[in-house]
Amino acid sequence: MSTIPKIVILGAGYGGILTAQRLQKELNYNEADVTLVNRHDYHYFTTHLHMPAAGTDSIEHTRVPISKLIDEFKIDLVKSTVREVRLSDRKVILEDGTLSYDYLVIALGGEPETFGIPGMEEHAFTIRSINSVRMIRQHIEYQFALYKTDESRKERLNFVVGGAGFSGIEFVAELADRIPRLCRENDVEPSKVHIYNIEAAPSALPGFDPELVEHAMNVLEKKGVNFKLGTAIQECRPDGVVLDSGETIKTATVVWTGGIRGNRIIEASGFETVRGRVKVDETLRVPGMDHVFIIGDNSLMFNPEGRPYPPTAQIAMQQGVVCAKNIVAAIRGGASRPFEFVNKGTVASLGKREAIAVVGDKKMTGWRAAQLKKLVDLRYLFIIGGIPLVLKKGRFL
Amino acid sequence: MSTIPKIVILGAGYGGILTAQRLQKELNYNEADVTLVNRHDYHYFTTHLHMPAAGTDSIEHTRVPISKLIDEFKIDLVKSTVREVRLSDRKVILEDGTLSYDYLVIALGGEPETFGIPGMEEHAFTIRSINSVRMIRQHIEYQFALYKTDESRKERLNFVVGGAGFSGIEFVAELADRIPRLCRENDVEPSKVHIYNIEAAPSALPGFDPELVEHAMNVLEKKGVNFKLGTAIQECRPDGVVLDSGETIKTATVVWTGGIRGNRIIEASGFETVRGRVKVDETLRVPGMDHVFIIGDNSLMFNPEGRPYPPTAQIAMQQGVVCAKNIVAAIRGGASRPFEFVNKGTVASLGKREAIAVVGDKKMTGWRAAQLKKLVDLRYLFIIGGIPLVLKKGRFL
Repeated sequence: MSTIPKIVILGAGYGGILTAQRLQKELNYNEADVTLVNRHDYHYFTTHLHMPAAGTDSIEHTRVPISKLIDEFKIDLVKSTVREVRLSDRKVILEDGTLSYDYLVIALGGEPETFGIPGMEEHAFTIRSINSVRMIRQHIEYQFALYKTDESRKERLNFVVGGAGFSGIEFVAELADRIPRLCRENDVEPSKVHIYNIEAAPSALPGFDPELVEHAMNVLEKKGVNFKLGTAIQECRPDGVVLDSGETIKTATVVWTGGIRGNRIIEASGFETVRGRVKVDETLRVPGMDHVFIIGDNSLMFNPEGRPYPPTAQIAMQQGVVCAKNIVAAIRGGASRPFEFVNKGTVASLGKREAIAVVGDKKMTGWRAAQLKKLVDLRYLFIIGGIPLVLKKGRFL
Repeated sequence: MSTIPKIVILGAGYGGILTAQRLQKELNYNEADVTLVNRHDYHYFTTHLHMPAAGTDSIEHTRVPISKLIDEFKIDLVKSTVREVRLSDRKVILEDGTLSYDYLVIALGGEPETFGIPGMEEHAFTIRSINSVRMIRQHIEYQFALYKTDESRKERLNFVVGGAGFSGIEFVAELADRIPRLCRENDVEPSKVHIYNIEAAPSALPGFDPELVEHAMNVLEKKGVNFKLGTAIQECRPDGVVLDSGETIKTATVVWTGGIRGNRIIEASGFETVRGRVKVDETLRVPGMDHVFIIGDNSLMFNPEGRPYPPTAQIAMQQGVVCAKNIVAAIRGGASRPFEFVNKGTVASLGKREAIAVVGDKKMTGWRAAQLKKLVDLRYLFIIGGIPLVLKKGRFL
């Protein structure tokens, strides 16, 4: 039995990968055992999922084997699904085994929040994983093929996206970009296809600069997206959605992007939660549990203005770095460092050659913003995989 | 009103296109009005459909706009669906109009024959048109995506092909070729995929040289195809097929290639038929109807040994040429020419770099036969569209 501390990281998303890589870099030989647990043997770029979902980019541009990101001589990879964290005896229960830990990093990512809308969980697709976006892409293509075998079923060409936040807007933009090609390939008149983006809030992209939001709406409406803002989906049925306006939209395809909540494993493990997220202290620890860190979508932290940080890749990455430093400090008896978010800006892609961005107090639109989006993606590839990964997975054009 | 004879050709398949092209070439200016009626504005290569069905080639390599094959100054194209031929008053009833004719060429192609197997018409796919093969391809891809969202449904990776004639064998070969790639793209272990080819006759490719058939079976079995010969499908259900051996194969995908019968429009129009086909005389006329020609899958003719010609592209094309000549002769008061089939050989593709062929008394297998298959395809493109079409649609590698 080794007496060196065991660090277990749950989840190889943005937060988990960054934590693992930093630990790998900062820990000395035999200073700790690090194990990274992930459901798949690949890491995927959540902020890129809207593209393979719409079919405008391939799945292979959206993921990378974890073994390419981690030195397996230094970190153990375990491909498994986490069932529960047993805090009382410091164990993680996997679907096919058990791991004990001295330090635990929970970086499991969130889950779609359907706000109890009837039928949404059963009938809507969500943009949450490689498997789920492959499903969306295939389902959309399938609707076109089905339509061509029975053109009376016009509703097969209606596509409903619930939620006009980041994911909703970015997906709807890609989908609108893909429609002309899908129509060509399937001999469908483009005017027969309808994309609806439905949002309960009075505006799209809540929190974003209103001027840029208006620009985004204009761009997307020109691409053919029908917005229904200030309109809630009351029910999702196998054959369409019922809106609170009383209107019904017939469709075989509903993609729900309306919300993210904490992972159910968190609640199942007995943590105190607010909408599935756990309030952590500024060192990213669960209060009262020195050895348990929660980062990313499952951690609840407040910014200096007292508002909760949103579940974004940027924050998860920065938390991963601080989390790794604090674990190393704990092992070496050093002082913890508080997490401080450095806002590097925000970009929302609007499809081909279009985006909106805010960096510092600068606003950008169009081609320049779209280039910035690509830069952000390339920068991420560079951070986690260096030049080789940039060359392998990067999209430059 | 023009007093020149009106020639109406129903269907722009192999027979219809060849008839139209020959008429266009041989008729003098204002010698006749020629109208070509087709459901789609494109001609497709039926003998190539197994590839887009399996997803090993694109639909665009499988069709060409009719307007590229026909001189629209000389021949009128009508995009419509034929409902009925009203022989009594020499009219063709279309879904959206009526055409009258002095000479009629029925080249509508056949329909799948399901031999009354319960559920086959409702639940099985058929390789019969661009729309139907697009559906097959999308359906197969959809099964992989669905499987990845619920891996307990192993039957989604079972694919059943009913019939081991030409279409069945050629499709199954392409499907087997595509599986490794589908598995890679969908993170599926190839050993989990099962392809079944079920044939009621005691051997595959009935009528083909037994030695070549054995070669074909070996090639396909090595590619992973499971043959069940001498086994009839007793019932096709939404969740699988029941065999006469008592066995049930669970699957969401049944492709039926087990037979071809004449077009139902033929029967609906009051022709005397044998399994939907009309016995025509050696000039390709319906006996007793000097002005009605039937060619291709809907015509029944016997070879010198007294056996009916099979419904093949080769025969339809040769019939188209003779049919055009006989119409021109009739207009000019010349003598009709009897149809005589010149067997140019037969090739069955077995997927990438594999085929079997009989040309004269020569048998071929492997790469050479596969090259011959490509030559046959290129030759056809050359016949109907010259060098430009060969360059545009031809597959050389």
